[in-house]
Amino acid sequence: MPKKDYITTQDFTKEEIMDIVNLSLLIKANIKAGYPLNVLYHKTLGMIFEQSSTRTRVSFETAMTQLGGHAQYLAPGQIQLGKHESMKDTSIVLSRLVDVLMARVQQHKTVEELAQYATVPVINGMSDYNHPTQEMGDIITMFEHLPEGKKIEDCKVVFVGDATQVCASLSMIVTKLGGHFVHYGPKGFQLTDRPQYDGIAEENCRVSGGTYLVTDDPEVALKDADFIYTDVWYGLYEAELSEEERMKIFYPKYQVSMDMIKKCAPNVKFMHCLPASRGEEVTDEVMDNPKVSICFDEAENRLTAMRGLLVYFMGKMDETVAICKNNLGRK
Amino acid sequence: MPKKDYITTQDFTKEEIMDIVNLSLLIKANIKAGYPLNVLYHKTLGMIFEQSSTRTRVSFETAMTQLGGHAQYLAPGQIQLGKHESMKDTSIVLSRLVDVLMARVQQHKTVEELAQYATVPVINGMSDYNHPTQEMGDIITMFEHLPEGKKIEDCKVVFVGDATQVCASLSMIVTKLGGHFVHYGPKGFQLTDRPQYDGIAEENCRVSGGTYLVTDDPEVALKDADFIYTDVWYGLYEAELSEEERMKIFYPKYQVSMDMIKKCAPNVKFMHCLPASRGEEVTDEVMDNPKVSICFDEAENRLTAMRGLLVYFMGKMDETVAICKNNLGRK
Amino acid sequence: MPKKDYITTQDFTKEEIMDIVNLSLLIKANIKAGYPLNVLYHKTLGMIFEQSSTRTRVSFETAMTQLGGHAQYLAPGQIQLGKHESMKDTSIVLSRLVDVLMARVQQHKTVEELAQYATVPVINGMSDYNHPTQEMGDIITMFEHLPEGKKIEDCKVVFVGDATQVCASLSMIVTKLGGHFVHYGPKGFQLTDRPQYDGIAEENCRVSGGTYLVTDDPEVALKDADFIYTDVWYGLYEAELSEEERMKIFYPKYQVSMDMIKKCAPNVKFMHCLPASRGEEVTDEVMDNPKVSICFDEAENRLTAMRGLLVYFMGKMDETVAICKNNLGRK
Repeated sequence: MPKKDYITTQDFTKEEIMDIVNLSLLIKANIKAGYPLNVLYHKTLGMIFEQSSTRTRVSFETAMTQLGGHAQYLAPGQIQLGKHESMKDTSIVLSRLVDVLMARVQQHKTVEELAQYATVPVINGMSDYNHPTQEMGDIITMFEHLPEGKKIEDCKVVFVGDATQVCASLSMIVTKLGGHFVHYGPKGFQLTDRPQYDGIAEENCRVSGGTYLVTDDPEVALKDADFIYTDVWYGLYEAELSEEERMKIFYPKYQVSMDMIKKCAPNVKFMHCLPASRGEEVTDEVMDNPKVSICFDEAENRLTAMRGLLVYFMGKMDETVAICKNNLGRK
Repeated sequence: MPKKDYITTQDFTKEEIMDIVNLSLLIKANIKAGYPLNVLYHKTLGMIFEQSSTRTRVSFETAMTQLGGHAQYLAPGQIQLGKHESMKDTSIVLSRLVDVLMARVQQHKTVEELAQYATVPVINGMSDYNHPTQEMGDIITMFEHLPEGKKIEDCKVVFVGDATQVCASLSMIVTKLGGHFVHYGPKGFQLTDRPQYDGIAEENCRVSGGTYLVTDDPEVALKDADFIYTDVWYGLYEAELSEEERMKIFYPKYQVSMDMIKKCAPNVKFMHCLPASRGEEVTDEVMDNPKVSICFDEAENRLTAMRGLLVYFMGKMDETVAICKNNLGRK
Repeated sequence: MPKKDYITTQDFTKEEIMDIVNLSLLIKANIKAGYPLNVLYHKTLGMIFEQSSTRTRVSFETAMTQLGGHAQYLAPGQIQLGKHESMKDTSIVLSRLVDVLMARVQQHKTVEELAQYATVPVINGMSDYNHPTQEMGDIITMFEHLPEGKKIEDCKVVFVGDATQVCASLSMIVTKLGGHFVHYGPKGFQLTDRPQYDGIAEENCRVSGGTYLVTDDPEVALKDADFIYTDVWYGLYEAELSEEERMKIFYPKYQVSMDMIKKCAPNVKFMHCLPASRGEEVTDEVMDNPKVSICFDEAENRLTAMRGLLVYFMGKMDETVAICKNNLGRK
């Protein structure tokens, strides 16, 4: 069986995505119930970080411990991909020394090359193009907080603000699963201004029956929204915005406030990939509102997703499902 | 049961402190006897370091491994408390991803805030105010080296030199347990010159029957001393002393030499939190004297203390005591 | 039983080296067959790096996980040997907190001092003088790829290029085991130009029956070579060569190309400690040639060697051999 990599959710069918979602939720239930798992016993995850990241690193490292294995943290500067040796050599050598790799990279092609040459599975821990482990945690969180009587295919998911790679990733997973995605952001900072994402969500919708809309009209965007999602307004790596610039562009129209929340569906949930710049893209009132905000459940589901992804790409899904179902007394 | 944090020993009664001491000693006996423990199986400790530290980090990390868990090292710069996001958000998110936290911080209020918002136990790995894991290792070391026929309540413990946070911490734990604490240091560098410690040791003495004295008189300080403790003379973070300055202030009066040792009780023991600047606050002759120096036993008891603290604050004391007593054939 | 350190292979007999080789190969077979090992259960390796290193660090860390223990990574700058405290104090204290130490050091005497004062085993993870864990991985790789019908004592091993510490180390292990070692390099960059290695290989040959030659004559060097080994041309730490300088000195005469390979024995194997500067000391054509290049097997055997070394120096050889033989059904 050839190894599979997790570089973008676009490489997988809706059914495969749902396998990972359900696997992740089952492992979560098993661990919350206090049953230890050892399906990755003595296995090693090599974690390559070209940029610092607390949440992704901590999630992966805790996940490996909970699965009986260990994660090695290769911090920015400790390994330099493509500098002292070719990406090919680094990929081959690391594949001989660890069982699975994850990489947070500056440029998307770096993680693609790593996956191309590595003989072990490679997981994309965020690039300048997308953030598929975040996607998986986000969609899991939506499944846990579906409005009563609704399926994911019935939900309207609105991303508010700058078309970051988190925004792009959210558009991919929501449309892949047949949901209704809206990017509500100002002209010049919309998903449609970024040619690298051209046609992806539209193609997903053709297959799944979902819809995809980009708009700066608040009425259209917010009406009946089931999930409101936002991210920081810093801008892209190569073109970071000053506080003054970003406030001028996004504030107050695109700030998620209780006023904005009131324009959505009655039980709308607020999500954020975090860290948040409180007072910029979101108010304290929204973020700390226990009826509205699910962003901390979402943060916890980074860990939920990492466990599911590691087990899935290490080829241990069936074994793990059997163990968890047995532990939990499910059939 | 609400979570408890270990921010200062002042939050605990003498009986609670003694529970941790006895738990730590029991775990030490169990591990020295070769019985593995897994009471923190698959659990994760998040270690946040705002400053570099070898001893504290290595002790915690080894402790987690020996208890069946894992410690994640978040190095200075890898996580910036209160910078990119609020302390509240960081505390809540980390609590979702790990099982227990420790932090070595620049400012004491940082670890207090972390404890306030975190939903998992928080252990103070040293601040500019105190060093309670060092306290625990120190008091354990004193229990292992009590003068024959004496209880801790009979002991005179003398800290020599600058009123560092280690000095302050020692004054707290010794007076809490009813011992007799002396700070022997020059005016301007005495505990009583630091208002943040006002009244703490005195209040402990009222409850415990211990005594507390600050003096620059060597006769009064050293007579009948059972333990002589010192620390470096560098000064505080914000006001580091040059070698010339510190030698002028402390040398030779406050150097722990064999001459000083001879003025103490016949079986006085020398302690130091390490690292030591040999030739400044202590001579080679004292530090390397196997009859006098217990500073390396003390260093090992950092690990002894960490295991006890982790087990205690993770709510595993009773279970662990039962396992260890069973392993060791004790009742 | 006094603790033993692994500072140089010169401290060991051929028989002891062969014990480690065979132990390493047995553990490799056991792990490839899927049998977990826990002979270092809950043990901690402290890894001290004065210089950054991916391969050595990852190999050691994976090895400890696979043996049931844990490796702590003390990165450059996180621990400063001989700076804030004496080497003696650091060595004694770390020995109280971990079970075994490895160190990659700038200066060989640092790892020697660490071993002198530490009360736990110390493994040299490379110094400016030698690289004995690389030696062990290399000799294991040669045993796995011996020419048909030949023993190691029959093999000609040629190191091409600059007399790095890897070159010196290779000369030691090959002559120790009775093989025939040649350093083929330009005058001024030959092993015999480095007085610290004077007489070592010659003395080994007197005991083992091996041979030792240093030459810049390609005919003499390459004829019948069974293994061709090279390393980068950067030069020594204190005297790094610019790309222009090193190309002028070594290129094209000392580049391992298919032309050079054709002058060796018909089934010659190419080795490299990696990372490689493709296009300098070796061509793509050689490095990517599956019939010739064994440098990635060699990289994997860093891990093979680390496991064997850790088990051997932790005093677990006999126990481990028994477990592995039982698992594998060998006698």
